[in-house]
Amino acid sequence: MLEKIDLSKKIDKETYKDTKTEQSERLGLLQRECKEAGIPVMIVFEGMGASGKGTQINRLIQALDPRGFDVYANDKSTEEERMRPFLWRFWTKLPAQGRIALFDRSWYRQVTIERFEGKIPEMALPEAFQDIQSFERQLTDDGMVIIKLFLYISKEEQKKRFNRLEASKETSWRVTEEDWKRNKEYGRFLEISEEMLQRTDMDYAPWTIIEGTDREYASAKIITQVADCLEDALRQRKIRGERKEKEVPVRSEKYQSGVLSGADLSKTMTKEEYKREMRRLKETLESLHSQIYRLRIPVVLGFEGWDAAGKGGAIKRLTSHLDPRGYKVYPTSAPNDLERVHHYLWRFWNHVPKAGHIAIFDRTWYGRVLVERIEGFCSKSEWKQAYQEINEMENHMANAGAVVIKFWLHIDKDEQEKRFKERQENPSKQWKITEEDWRNREKWDQYESAVNEMLVRTSTTYAPWVVVEANCKYYARIKVLKTVVEALESEIKKSKKNS
Amino acid sequence: MLEKIDLSKKIDKETYKDTKTEQSERLGLLQRECKEAGIPVMIVFEGMGASGKGTQINRLIQALDPRGFDVYANDKSTEEERMRPFLWRFWTKLPAQGRIALFDRSWYRQVTIERFEGKIPEMALPEAFQDIQSFERQLTDDGMVIIKLFLYISKEEQKKRFNRLEASKETSWRVTEEDWKRNKEYGRFLEISEEMLQRTDMDYAPWTIIEGTDREYASAKIITQVADCLEDALRQRKIRGERKEKEVPVRSEKYQSGVLSGADLSKTMTKEEYKREMRRLKETLESLHSQIYRLRIPVVLGFEGWDAAGKGGAIKRLTSHLDPRGYKVYPTSAPNDLERVHHYLWRFWNHVPKAGHIAIFDRTWYGRVLVERIEGFCSKSEWKQAYQEINEMENHMANAGAVVIKFWLHIDKDEQEKRFKERQENPSKQWKITEEDWRNREKWDQYESAVNEMLVRTSTTYAPWVVVEANCKYYARIKVLKTVVEALESEIKKSKKNS
Repeated sequence: MLEKIDLSKKIDKETYKDTKTEQSERLGLLQRECKEAGIPVMIVFEGMGASGKGTQINRLIQALDPRGFDVYANDKSTEEERMRPFLWRFWTKLPAQGRIALFDRSWYRQVTIERFEGKIPEMALPEAFQDIQSFERQLTDDGMVIIKLFLYISKEEQKKRFNRLEASKETSWRVTEEDWKRNKEYGRFLEISEEMLQRTDMDYAPWTIIEGTDREYASAKIITQVADCLEDALRQRKIRGERKEKEVPVRSEKYQSGVLSGADLSKTMTKEEYKREMRRLKETLESLHSQIYRLRIPVVLGFEGWDAAGKGGAIKRLTSHLDPRGYKVYPTSAPNDLERVHHYLWRFWNHVPKAGHIAIFDRTWYGRVLVERIEGFCSKSEWKQAYQEINEMENHMANAGAVVIKFWLHIDKDEQEKRFKERQENPSKQWKITEEDWRNREKWDQYESAVNEMLVRTSTTYAPWVVVEANCKYYARIKVLKTVVEALESEIKKSKKNS
Repeated sequence: MLEKIDLSKKIDKETYKDTKTEQSERLGLLQRECKEAGIPVMIVFEGMGASGKGTQINRLIQALDPRGFDVYANDKSTEEERMRPFLWRFWTKLPAQGRIALFDRSWYRQVTIERFEGKIPEMALPEAFQDIQSFERQLTDDGMVIIKLFLYISKEEQKKRFNRLEASKETSWRVTEEDWKRNKEYGRFLEISEEMLQRTDMDYAPWTIIEGTDREYASAKIITQVADCLEDALRQRKIRGERKEKEVPVRSEKYQSGVLSGADLSKTMTKEEYKREMRRLKETLESLHSQIYRLRIPVVLGFEGWDAAGKGGAIKRLTSHLDPRGYKVYPTSAPNDLERVHHYLWRFWNHVPKAGHIAIFDRTWYGRVLVERIEGFCSKSEWKQAYQEINEMENHMANAGAVVIKFWLHIDKDEQEKRFKERQENPSKQWKITEEDWRNREKWDQYESAVNEMLVRTSTTYAPWVVVEANCKYYARIKVLKTVVEALESEIKKSKKNS
């Protein structure tokens, strides 16, 4: 979930001040409403060292009625705590109905810091994750709202902050040897955090990543997110009371993780480079294809992207030199009658590739969180749930040895318009453009925010998303091929090592 | 879940014929209703070899409209299947809305037979269980009804059946070498099955154990259970449609697993034996208590039972020779105001013992599935969910090294009446008997069926239930002490071996 996060996000002072004033008032009001409705709330602050958890908690509680919340700092466990199951210290700190508990580090310590320090055996990890999932499910089933925030900064930023803290007499004690160790081995800690986020990003208690470089941006995102969650909980409570469902737009769109906006669409490639690269990559791919066949490695490639972004072209270039007995392309359109009376993932399960074969999906199961979400073909709870369901499906494939990669072919709005018009004017391409394409285009912003959320929630170590800058078709096709080649090479290497 | 099952259950021919006629008609009707409502249904048959899965499936489908169901026999996986993730063969066999799929062995093969044969590494088990849980959760979230039946017979019965099959030329091919291996190592296969049942007995897809010795009893229980589940699903669907909840009694009470009825309440003990045993056990217990303290083993003992069954007396005898610094007794009554605004498990979490200490609960968290269930203090979905929640809590404690034992002190209705009257007539004991006790007594049958379900669903390898025959107080007290002594001895031995 972390690799797709843009850490350079910031806001100016003016915007911060305005947001703070506006959201503080809103949050104060919501806190009172939650108190009346008897809704208990837990807010979890996790993240990198020196990412500003303490500061952010302080800022957030300024907006809250102090009679209604408690803050718990969860440093190393005490003797008393170590003598009990690790969730005990949190069960005993549950907020009563109508109260808020804020946690500076939490039960996630067990599967991050303690794991990093080798204090819990790897063997005990599955149990720990299951214990955590049960814990949160039990509480949310009972009406608890759990808001989980992960504060994220880069290795360099962390180092800078540690140095600054150490330089001052007053704060130098705050930087420990363990902190420096986690900075030196930042990559390993990141991996552990990544796994933790993926395994516990549940529908009933999802994670929100907070870009922590700019403190003001982080504060604004946190307060807005917390207010949104409380509002949502109150709405749910009312809905359950009145037994009717209604969709209300979420307010915090401007603080969503904008993965797409970070893509550099000016990337380009000349025809000569393209031809040369293409020749080289195709030869490699041919040889890799026969190797994965012999090694019985299944491969799943998913293609999503804007209309006219060039999915078809990229797939064509990818397959043109593959042995047709070893791959299959599955185009996905609206579900047919038979598919409609099955689970939405069923039709994709029918096309899971055999070991040694490649399945290429032109549009995929991600329709659930894109078109079905935007067009209201499924309910809010259904598409929210889908992130976890999709991750579980891809994880199951990966557990069975599959290489799983998803491509998002990205163009900007102007480029799309240009391509739409070209299609309309070219008789041989007119069939490719319909009224519906123009209608979808009008919902560009809604789609963009859905794509951003999808990329963050479903880009995993076992099935990563690759954003392909596709304003230049040459560049895009080469990036797709290169990614596939590299992924296969790495899997083949791993597979040979293990056998 | 299996140890509490009474395998001697049977019914006479007349009853079977009547049930069959009545339930077949009911089931046929329900199948049509499910078809109209578009509810897909999966019925899973798992269990011991020769427990009669094939026969039972055959009998069940007699009642069904053949145009509405499919039967899948899941023998060893095919080449095609082995080349894909293990759930693939089941995803592709999902019934469409309104259809029924019956599985003779299922996805559970992976965590039972394949595991028994060493074909999947122990390391891969947590993943497999998680994959199975996700699979069932995803489907039931989507409206699928999953009915899981486990056919259970004893080692001796199995052997008898294998011999009978082998004796006939027509059926001898059905008994394989693998079958005999599983019979020889019946104990190990039982353990594996037990773990499978516990880890996958989810609220959304619970297991039903079918006592398989008497085929007619099994058939009657299966058809009634399936009909109940369909009826329940239709009701849920309607409730969701109408947005209102209503409790309707389940019909199949007579096929519930009657653990209690198997208890031999005539067990007794003379005063002399009692005194002698008591002296011996207390000395042992004293020494064990200091050992668990040194070895830092936490102990959780829960006491439940009928009113006047002698919980207090048994606890008193247990603790009278313990060092008071090392144990604590927690009486549980109706929740107070503070407890009422927390999760129902919260107050018990507050009393989780430290390593090396003993916590004794006089009445426990099982109130959720007993008094709260019977008196309607919580909703049906809440107490149904509680079995899993409680198992998870106890498993978490066991993961942290705790010994967890639960005692059900069992007396019969006559004995209770005798004791109630004694209390009323004895001025020093009058305070112990209230109007409420008499009222509870009127609901004896309801409680009995709730207790039976509780014993089956929450007796686990890591936290077993012990039914204590308590018509004779001497016998009961000694059995409690003996059980505790043996459990501590075994844990101490294990702990010493590991250190």
